[in-house]
Amino acid sequence: MEFDTIAAISTPSGEGAIAIVRLSGPEAVTIADKLFRAPAGKRLADQKSHTIHYGNLTDPQTDEVAEEVMISIMKAPKTFTREDVIEINCHGGLVSVNRVLTLVLRAGARLAEPGEFTKRAFLNGRIDLSQAEAVMDLIRAKTDRAMNVALNQMDGRLSKLIGQLRQALLETLAQVEVNIDYPEYDDVEEMTVPVMLEKSEWVRSEIDRLLSTSQQGKILREGLSTVIVGKPNVGKSSLLNSLVQENKAIVTEIAGTTRDIIEEYVNVRGVPLRLVDTAGIRETEDIVERIGVERSRKVLKEADLILYVLSHADELTSEDEKMMEAVAGMNYIVVVNKTDLPQGIDMERIQEFAGKSRLVTTSLIEEEGVDQLEQAIADLFFEGSVEANDMTYVSNARHISLLHQAHSTISDAITAAEAGVPVDMIQIDVVRTWELLGEIIGDTVQESLINQLFSQFCLGK
Amino acid sequence: MEFDTIAAISTPSGEGAIAIVRLSGPEAVTIADKLFRAPAGKRLADQKSHTIHYGNLTDPQTDEVAEEVMISIMKAPKTFTREDVIEINCHGGLVSVNRVLTLVLRAGARLAEPGEFTKRAFLNGRIDLSQAEAVMDLIRAKTDRAMNVALNQMDGRLSKLIGQLRQALLETLAQVEVNIDYPEYDDVEEMTVPVMLEKSEWVRSEIDRLLSTSQQGKILREGLSTVIVGKPNVGKSSLLNSLVQENKAIVTEIAGTTRDIIEEYVNVRGVPLRLVDTAGIRETEDIVERIGVERSRKVLKEADLILYVLSHADELTSEDEKMMEAVAGMNYIVVVNKTDLPQGIDMERIQEFAGKSRLVTTSLIEEEGVDQLEQAIADLFFEGSVEANDMTYVSNARHISLLHQAHSTISDAITAAEAGVPVDMIQIDVVRTWELLGEIIGDTVQESLINQLFSQFCLGK
Repeated sequence: MEFDTIAAISTPSGEGAIAIVRLSGPEAVTIADKLFRAPAGKRLADQKSHTIHYGNLTDPQTDEVAEEVMISIMKAPKTFTREDVIEINCHGGLVSVNRVLTLVLRAGARLAEPGEFTKRAFLNGRIDLSQAEAVMDLIRAKTDRAMNVALNQMDGRLSKLIGQLRQALLETLAQVEVNIDYPEYDDVEEMTVPVMLEKSEWVRSEIDRLLSTSQQGKILREGLSTVIVGKPNVGKSSLLNSLVQENKAIVTEIAGTTRDIIEEYVNVRGVPLRLVDTAGIRETEDIVERIGVERSRKVLKEADLILYVLSHADELTSEDEKMMEAVAGMNYIVVVNKTDLPQGIDMERIQEFAGKSRLVTTSLIEEEGVDQLEQAIADLFFEGSVEANDMTYVSNARHISLLHQAHSTISDAITAAEAGVPVDMIQIDVVRTWELLGEIIGDTVQESLINQLFSQFCLGK
Repeated sequence: MEFDTIAAISTPSGEGAIAIVRLSGPEAVTIADKLFRAPAGKRLADQKSHTIHYGNLTDPQTDEVAEEVMISIMKAPKTFTREDVIEINCHGGLVSVNRVLTLVLRAGARLAEPGEFTKRAFLNGRIDLSQAEAVMDLIRAKTDRAMNVALNQMDGRLSKLIGQLRQALLETLAQVEVNIDYPEYDDVEEMTVPVMLEKSEWVRSEIDRLLSTSQQGKILREGLSTVIVGKPNVGKSSLLNSLVQENKAIVTEIAGTTRDIIEEYVNVRGVPLRLVDTAGIRETEDIVERIGVERSRKVLKEADLILYVLSHADELTSEDEKMMEAVAGMNYIVVVNKTDLPQGIDMERIQEFAGKSRLVTTSLIEEEGVDQLEQAIADLFFEGSVEANDMTYVSNARHISLLHQAHSTISDAITAAEAGVPVDMIQIDVVRTWELLGEIIGDTVQESLINQLFSQFCLGK
């Protein structure tokens, strides 16, 4: 496919040593040559692919030096987009990189849309849709495990598995065709149904297996939205600080919001806890007191994980009982803090409520118990440990939804086959399953959906 | 000089398409080869300089793929640092780039100190100190003009001029040596003093000329710290919004401070207005009322530019008189806003106070007068227009201080020469001037100062 030439800033915005403006398209080299002045007068068009060239970028209107740059030239097809790619390395200042981008746009490039480079890699057939989606997951990964999940997906593991399932369905359909084309052979029908059932059941069991990874996959990808609640003075802030200090926290601003809303990610044994708006969490002092208030219930309801902190020194109150009622059925862990103080709390009641697995005792002031809390979190979501690196997780909500639909259509096919419905009727459900699985890798997917998917990417990718 | 091998993340932190981890030093290629796995099994050590290679970075401990990368190899001496340089382009995520850095450090590189790459470029003789300082100025530039000033300095224009001045002083000193070595020739002394005077006066006049650019240079480099003051409801927020909307604002966080303090730069005709903590500016409502309060006076005193907003519809009060008293002698511009409303203000009094050059009338609600205000700001600091691009500005506080000192020592030499002091006495001041000018380009500068200078750089540069 032939496209126009696009350009964008491909490094994060801000001040740094180096920034990159990337071009992709048939005119990438020509556009760069309009601006580039190398010491020996060489032209980029004459250079070999995958080479680097030092020189100045000049403004053709004034012939003045606009920036000192290193230009990387990568010629099609062995590039990220399978098109000619030029990367202009300039100084990482806001003015500098915007100046380079402006020159490149004036020289004939078009500003790329978010995700447009990756979209071209997909449209030009270098990667499939699930691999393209993994690129963005990789960039947004908050933990090592999440990055490995994305790397595996980018490497095509999910694609390969989906391909195998579709191949099996295709073979089934071929059988049906034989049956329709040669209806005179009765035994073909007799042969077809058992084979079809077998293959379909295998496909369904594989879909089941993939879906069983989806909860953990989603957690790895998106993080566990976590709320710390408890009465004033039980140690909520200390708990927050312990978690943040013992684990490397990644703080990101949520795009498109005011700078007051930030996400803080804490990596607890490979599980990313997403402490959305820590300031807000610090203000949940009154949730326990106002457990009857709807807003407080909403905060609890939207959380993936509730850390409910109690003081070892205080007796349980009716408010605590209400709180326990409210969180029952949710993912909660009870943290009985201040074990350094004399016991006032009714531990039997707490054990009855939380069981052993959801109860942790800590003395944050003496830095005790945080390890156990972290283990309890891992236990709650990963039954002890996050799976090995080489596992194929399904983590993307779009994929999960398609797998659920495929599960439903293949189940319909199986039920129908078992009920003795004519084979050519069952065929419809098998074809639909094949199509749904195809949407995951972008084989049978609409252009509007593709545009919408890539628009969620970051600029310059 | 032989150093160890350093590494750092060289792109701004945050999420983006691409991030770069840069290595420099004798082991750069060896370290990269420990981690790099290319499809055809090629080794970076065997590759030509200035080439790019696609492959995976693997963790030697587990032999698992850690990231998909493009590696640029640039061999000494034609590199930024004059050492072997490796740039690892990886995905621009926080986890990804930190993983790559970690692997590189484990494989034997040392984490670079801020500015250490540029420091090596200086220590290895590729650039002088003023050029190195320009690298950082370029990255921090807030306007096109500031970037051009930095580009010129990086290109060595200031260095060249300083070199010429030092050469002239050296020739003078050679004259003195002749005089000391051959005291029997009386006429040498007679010849020496006029020549010395002439050269010294030329050097002083050049220093004068350089220093005359320093105020504008500093403004271009650092921006004008600007405060908008006025009584409530006169249109301060509207003025701020007009300035921000009509000009591209660059918002940067001040490193090392909480995320509540930000700087907002507005580019007004090439003059960067630094609106420090806009939130704070929006809170200066009460400055006029509390003009007697010390804190308010302090805010005014620390500003480079005061925009004093009055309402065309309101009569002047005694508070206004106090305000005018307070800003007299400062750099202020009076903005009489709301000219769309009937006149209540005593314009004669305002004209008497502000003169024509410091008075602008606006109707922000009708979007009138902002152009005139911008011109007034340019007039106040640049007498009408910012100088042409090819001017050599002195903008760095260190350079300005050294030039002042050099001005003082060369003046001492001139005075002494005119007073008939023996030539070998005058020599001392001339040598000192030569040394002071040498400090600007790093020729005669102490190691401790060099370390301190580069520590102000950003990481990875």
